[in-house]
Amino acid sequence: MALIVHKYGGTSMGSTERIKNVARRVAKWHDAGYQIVVVPSAMSGETNRLIGLAKDIMPQPDPRELDMLASTGEQVSVALLAMALQSIGKEAVSYAGWQVAIKTDSAFTKARIQSIDDVKVQKDLDAGRIVIITGFQGVDDDGNIATLGRGGSDTSAVAVAVALKAQECLIYTDVDGVYTTDPRVVSEARRLNTVTFEEMLEMASLGSKVLQIRSVEFAGNYRMPTRVLSSLTDPMIPLEEEAKSGTLISFEEDTHMEQAAITGIAFNRDEAKITVLGVPDRPGIAYQILGPIAAANIEVDMIIQNQSVDGKTDFTFTVPRGDYAKAVDVLNESVKAHIGAASIQGDTKVSKVSVVGVGMRSHVGIASQMFRTLSEEGINIQMISTSEIKISVLIDEKYMELAVRALHKTFDLEKSN
Amino acid sequence: MALIVHKYGGTSMGSTERIKNVARRVAKWHDAGYQIVVVPSAMSGETNRLIGLAKDIMPQPDPRELDMLASTGEQVSVALLAMALQSIGKEAVSYAGWQVAIKTDSAFTKARIQSIDDVKVQKDLDAGRIVIITGFQGVDDDGNIATLGRGGSDTSAVAVAVALKAQECLIYTDVDGVYTTDPRVVSEARRLNTVTFEEMLEMASLGSKVLQIRSVEFAGNYRMPTRVLSSLTDPMIPLEEEAKSGTLISFEEDTHMEQAAITGIAFNRDEAKITVLGVPDRPGIAYQILGPIAAANIEVDMIIQNQSVDGKTDFTFTVPRGDYAKAVDVLNESVKAHIGAASIQGDTKVSKVSVVGVGMRSHVGIASQMFRTLSEEGINIQMISTSEIKISVLIDEKYMELAVRALHKTFDLEKSN
Repeated sequence: MALIVHKYGGTSMGSTERIKNVARRVAKWHDAGYQIVVVPSAMSGETNRLIGLAKDIMPQPDPRELDMLASTGEQVSVALLAMALQSIGKEAVSYAGWQVAIKTDSAFTKARIQSIDDVKVQKDLDAGRIVIITGFQGVDDDGNIATLGRGGSDTSAVAVAVALKAQECLIYTDVDGVYTTDPRVVSEARRLNTVTFEEMLEMASLGSKVLQIRSVEFAGNYRMPTRVLSSLTDPMIPLEEEAKSGTLISFEEDTHMEQAAITGIAFNRDEAKITVLGVPDRPGIAYQILGPIAAANIEVDMIIQNQSVDGKTDFTFTVPRGDYAKAVDVLNESVKAHIGAASIQGDTKVSKVSVVGVGMRSHVGIASQMFRTLSEEGINIQMISTSEIKISVLIDEKYMELAVRALHKTFDLEKSN
Repeated sequence: MALIVHKYGGTSMGSTERIKNVARRVAKWHDAGYQIVVVPSAMSGETNRLIGLAKDIMPQPDPRELDMLASTGEQVSVALLAMALQSIGKEAVSYAGWQVAIKTDSAFTKARIQSIDDVKVQKDLDAGRIVIITGFQGVDDDGNIATLGRGGSDTSAVAVAVALKAQECLIYTDVDGVYTTDPRVVSEARRLNTVTFEEMLEMASLGSKVLQIRSVEFAGNYRMPTRVLSSLTDPMIPLEEEAKSGTLISFEEDTHMEQAAITGIAFNRDEAKITVLGVPDRPGIAYQILGPIAAANIEVDMIIQNQSVDGKTDFTFTVPRGDYAKAVDVLNESVKAHIGAASIQGDTKVSKVSVVGVGMRSHVGIASQMFRTLSEEGINIQMISTSEIKISVLIDEKYMELAVRALHKTFDLEKSN
């Protein structure tokens, strides 16, 4: 019997009324003969409420205790959804991550899933039960609860789908799919029927908040077909219609029927730029700068090292804005004197804009078209980074929306394919 | 180093401000050289909020899922209290019941503790950490969360104190001790400095809501000195003063310095009376009636079987009011026809009033003084039950307060000893 994993976001789980709607939708799939595992998020607002309580007590709560606290939000959700399913005659059982068990490392508040035991869940499924598993969390080797970070329920859902060899993982959310760019910025933005895993990875990592990036990595690594679709439709719409809605993240490039060079424009406001000036240009210097940053669990995105002049160079990189102060502290304390740098400079008012598309591989001139468009709008490019399927630029954040609109237009993304 | 267990009720944990006060109080004890384990309840209102969500979804939620849901309230509390202690420089770590592990049976929503593993906690204590453990809950052999029922955190605290061989278990609550009766009913009610375990058991089981009855049983079975005291005092009052405040539940009768025959008047509004009429009077009939009731997990309190007339008798017993409908259903479905009873009658508008005191053993005439007092007030007695240290009567609930006040006066309980 085919197994499908459903994931529901916080908005979909936002009230007991909405939870009942989720139950009706899940029951529809179960009635159609599918085995179903559901991974719900916490009710919307709940995680913020819990973290607010913690911040009332201390500004920088201990990560282990923060996970102990925040993980309760999803536990409430799974229990309520199990009840909602039982109330319409379905056998259902809920599990917290530690009960399954979903094993993680001990990087509290940003843990990674290491393994999922499928024995208990498989037994329930075989007995005809719908299984509901908390998103966002697991348990480390010492029995501590560890959460996967914001949006971690997406990753939980895909990981569960992989562990149980599901046919498809359906991510129900409050948007109806993946768009060429954010429709709030460009009203002509168009929903994509399919997107390749690599494109989705770039879109997600660049701030299209539809899916947590790690969930896309997981889906990609294990080739788990994953669909983003709306939870706001009538729960009783025909299953055949629902099963084809939204955007499918596919793993076959030749199923990618959209022939345009560019699939979408992604952007990210959550950027900060740091420059280490007057660095002696010798082997190992990049590691000496970025090693302590990585050790502080700060993710580095764009990196540039200038041509050296008189044996000295400048080294620039970007970090998430929330980690900016910490990163500067790390550099001042552990790096600056050690490597003999002249000074540290930074800017938190920057944004990243990227054009993404697998079609870029076979189309020349994408980069020059992008740069010309920005230039025509008078937007200065501060940093550039490229991959096979993406070109990103860092710009002053005040031009971000202008840049996105201009690029969306220049690459004809509003046109249906 | 002496170990003390602190238990804090929902009111004491009712806001982040109050949680900080709890942390200050706990730190004071730790600073004085005690090892401390804290067992907090859920923040006041939280358990009701969670159960309200469940009832929104279905009137009779599945007990396993209800426990999954309700147990989150205490998990929030322990994490916040750990943070509050850390914020004032104490090392602290929180555990959910399953992490300790506190093992229970699988009677969801009314589970019983079977064992507590002290290895993890002892290790933390030896390392100088304050350990915070969720009240109210444990984990069964299959890894399901099971809760101990309303007030279960008291039982958790005493059980943890026993498992860790604590010197004393301090139950901090929003009353400052055990009174001769409820001061809201009798304004002259007086706080007791000590009360014997047996008296406390009767007081607790009869509706003095200070402590959950099972916690008193636990304390009695393992002779764990347990003190009920106020959490509303200034957290920084001298420890010596705080350590002697409240009411100590003692296990040495000769430490019971209060020479009055009667220690207190207990009462319970949560009663319902059921009568099975026209029962054939033959051996085993009590078991045939009460066996199915017990199997439905309904507690039976007072039991009366009338003198039989013409081989028929009436059988009357009381149950908690919340179980009344279920008990009547059980009787109608599984008992009535089977034993050939004529009919089932019931009354939910009854209350129980009891006089309690170990001194009763050596004083004759307590019962007659009680019955005379009720008679003088024109109160009809529906059922009577007695033990060595208690006499209980079931009366119309509208006379309950009158009865309590009259009995408190007739036994001179307002006088200091």
